[in-house]
Amino acid sequence: MADKKSIRIGILGFGTVGQGVWKHLTQDKAALERRLGVKLVLARASVSDLKKKRAVKLPKSKLTADSFAIVDDPSIDIVCELIGGTTLARELTLRALANGKTVVTANKALLCEHGEELFEAARKEGVHYFFEASVAGGIPIIKTLREGLIANRFPLIYGILNGTTNYMLTRMEREGISYEDVLGEARRLGYVEADEALDLDGVDAAHKAVILAYLAHGKWVSLNDMFVEGIRKITAQDVEYARQLGYKIKLLAVIQRDFDKEALSVRLHPALIKKSELMAQVDMVFNGVSLTGDVVGTTLLVGRGAGQDATASAVISDIADAVYAIQGGPAPAISEEDAEVYDALGAGLRLAKPQDIASAYYLRLRVKDQKGVLAKVARVFADAGLSVATMIQHEDPGSNSAVLIFTTHLSNEAAAAKAVAKLENLDAVLETPFLLRIFNPPPM
Amino acid sequence: MADKKSIRIGILGFGTVGQGVWKHLTQDKAALERRLGVKLVLARASVSDLKKKRAVKLPKSKLTADSFAIVDDPSIDIVCELIGGTTLARELTLRALANGKTVVTANKALLCEHGEELFEAARKEGVHYFFEASVAGGIPIIKTLREGLIANRFPLIYGILNGTTNYMLTRMEREGISYEDVLGEARRLGYVEADEALDLDGVDAAHKAVILAYLAHGKWVSLNDMFVEGIRKITAQDVEYARQLGYKIKLLAVIQRDFDKEALSVRLHPALIKKSELMAQVDMVFNGVSLTGDVVGTTLLVGRGAGQDATASAVISDIADAVYAIQGGPAPAISEEDAEVYDALGAGLRLAKPQDIASAYYLRLRVKDQKGVLAKVARVFADAGLSVATMIQHEDPGSNSAVLIFTTHLSNEAAAAKAVAKLENLDAVLETPFLLRIFNPPPM
Repeated sequence: MADKKSIRIGILGFGTVGQGVWKHLTQDKAALERRLGVKLVLARASVSDLKKKRAVKLPKSKLTADSFAIVDDPSIDIVCELIGGTTLARELTLRALANGKTVVTANKALLCEHGEELFEAARKEGVHYFFEASVAGGIPIIKTLREGLIANRFPLIYGILNGTTNYMLTRMEREGISYEDVLGEARRLGYVEADEALDLDGVDAAHKAVILAYLAHGKWVSLNDMFVEGIRKITAQDVEYARQLGYKIKLLAVIQRDFDKEALSVRLHPALIKKSELMAQVDMVFNGVSLTGDVVGTTLLVGRGAGQDATASAVISDIADAVYAIQGGPAPAISEEDAEVYDALGAGLRLAKPQDIASAYYLRLRVKDQKGVLAKVARVFADAGLSVATMIQHEDPGSNSAVLIFTTHLSNEAAAAKAVAKLENLDAVLETPFLLRIFNPPPM
Repeated sequence: MADKKSIRIGILGFGTVGQGVWKHLTQDKAALERRLGVKLVLARASVSDLKKKRAVKLPKSKLTADSFAIVDDPSIDIVCELIGGTTLARELTLRALANGKTVVTANKALLCEHGEELFEAARKEGVHYFFEASVAGGIPIIKTLREGLIANRFPLIYGILNGTTNYMLTRMEREGISYEDVLGEARRLGYVEADEALDLDGVDAAHKAVILAYLAHGKWVSLNDMFVEGIRKITAQDVEYARQLGYKIKLLAVIQRDFDKEALSVRLHPALIKKSELMAQVDMVFNGVSLTGDVVGTTLLVGRGAGQDATASAVISDIADAVYAIQGGPAPAISEEDAEVYDALGAGLRLAKPQDIASAYYLRLRVKDQKGVLAKVARVFADAGLSVATMIQHEDPGSNSAVLIFTTHLSNEAAAAKAVAKLENLDAVLETPFLLRIFNPPPM
């Protein structure tokens, strides 16, 4: 195959990303062909509705409503799976791999849920499965993790992996607007996925964290075993209180490995992070990933997380690597099908118990505005073993209640949960206490 | 060669970086061998003084004072050139390439001055020359530019490429200390190169800018054709005045290509950049590179620019890519020896005339504290076609003089030079006017 002069590409799903890939591949084809030393042929694209109008026009002969016709077409070398979802996409990917095709995907949900099966299938067939576009499109994070920083083990990887929620939190912080208003805005702009839970409950970002955790640590973590919390309960007031304390609230994925105890923690939740941190200033639709390697120290990457063009850029870089792989070269850097490598990375590694995860906390508490309440609350903190770092009382005139904002020193989830449960039972506490983590990354 | 089971590595120069590579390769060998599917043998290292004590101890049999014995050793597959300099390093590199070896380097000066010859030599021999460690060690910028963002053309690449001067500017800004004091500190910490001009006059960062410009635009720019200015003339006052105006001063490499006019500008100079830019917050010894691609938008990468470990991390990632190349694969992503690719990138491209480069300016002027001076100065600005954006007068009590700080709207080098020349000739102007550029990157 080393002298293959023409590489034929099929695209499954001709939506935003699919059209972006086709558009940019067409525009820059000569330059890319020169670099890769092959002809690139955009062979076919599949759609669910042949009649729908699209910004990128294709001749009828290139469009099909039958995705299987593409994965079964013996003339096609590379299949780009851009339909999303985990049922049909899984079936098509397995069939494409079984047919000896290289597959490029942007599908984080599929990888997260079926990565193990798909990598195994690729390995069995001796073909490749590329997925740079699945995490933080505009940031070449997969390549950086697997190739650029190959000399490293990673005690800490953390970052902002969902642009929609980051956009919402940024606008809440900049303009003081409410969660509901900014959500309405994000919907109008088309930023929110059809299944809103993917964004708002942190599921999309959690999928991406699972992929990064696998690449760094050789362990597929189930979403069920992860702590995953979205941004639905965050109020404009929380954002403002955090600001007064010198923090911003970001939805963070945190992947921590303790190499002494061989414990891995993968979690996704909103967190207060000091304003002065570069990560805190990754705003609007941008994503940011911080990688701390045992050799290189900390490297931070920032870029657009999604959108037609950034995702197309990532898909095209995978197509380039796929061309090299097809030409008979060994996989660029780590072979994702090399189970041995990942098995070794994850050997002896266990998941940290959620209750053992260390964190400092922010706690918002609405209490009756009466004598002795603070003493009772303080007693609960002391009993739970939570040490208070700061407390601010915000009066709520005319309401007979006050809002207390606590921050704590470093503690753990068990202590925090204990405190919240006890606080909730106090007569003077008027609302379910609201807890956020404070994430203090080590100095870069 | 596809079944080569053992790869032998020779290291030229066993200083800070050489020892770092040996140390980390030794520590993490099993993991790396598993990933690469080969045995890695650290064969030999060369030193100039066999008797010198080193932190990383080697058996005598592995050390040699004769670098040529390594490049001529037929059993060695990969040569890491870590001796620096452009004379012996060039000779050794050419000989290693001629002997069919893959060469990995951290030597930006050599690449900058002889890259064309070295790439040509590698191409002629059908071998590879890797240089990730030559630019911003802890940031996989070469791989990102050539592979991760392969779908893009780059209208703008800019960043902080020298850790020593960034450390100095950061401390001046944070502590208000003088250039001389912070230079003394940087010397004591061993941050300044033996040839201080490399850091202080911007030569080191300019070398790196030349390499990035070649990779992005296929044109080797000579340092003689570049605008290169270091940080020696920056005072604590400039840093403070900039702060008051909402800026920080950073030593920036700027690579701009106007794709309509096919004009390329590569320059290296201190610049005022708005405090709110992420790049302005890349502080201390860190480097930062911002890449604006026509497909992906802007991606920012931050990491340690130098030091034993960050550089070793980059060298080891190149060794990994070298192993793949040796195993018979096509070069990972762009083949650096592919002259055709780079010729095409640079075809029709000309260097922008320095006088045409657009910028806004900061100008510090010491003038006699007397009537009518400001009018004269203002007339010079108007005559030169420079439009003043802000002016602040700082009194200098007891000196009969005042310091005027101007910022201008967007103008160009020709107008700025004209204004400075005329100002210098005014009787009321007491010191050579000091000009800095203001760099306003487009929104990410």
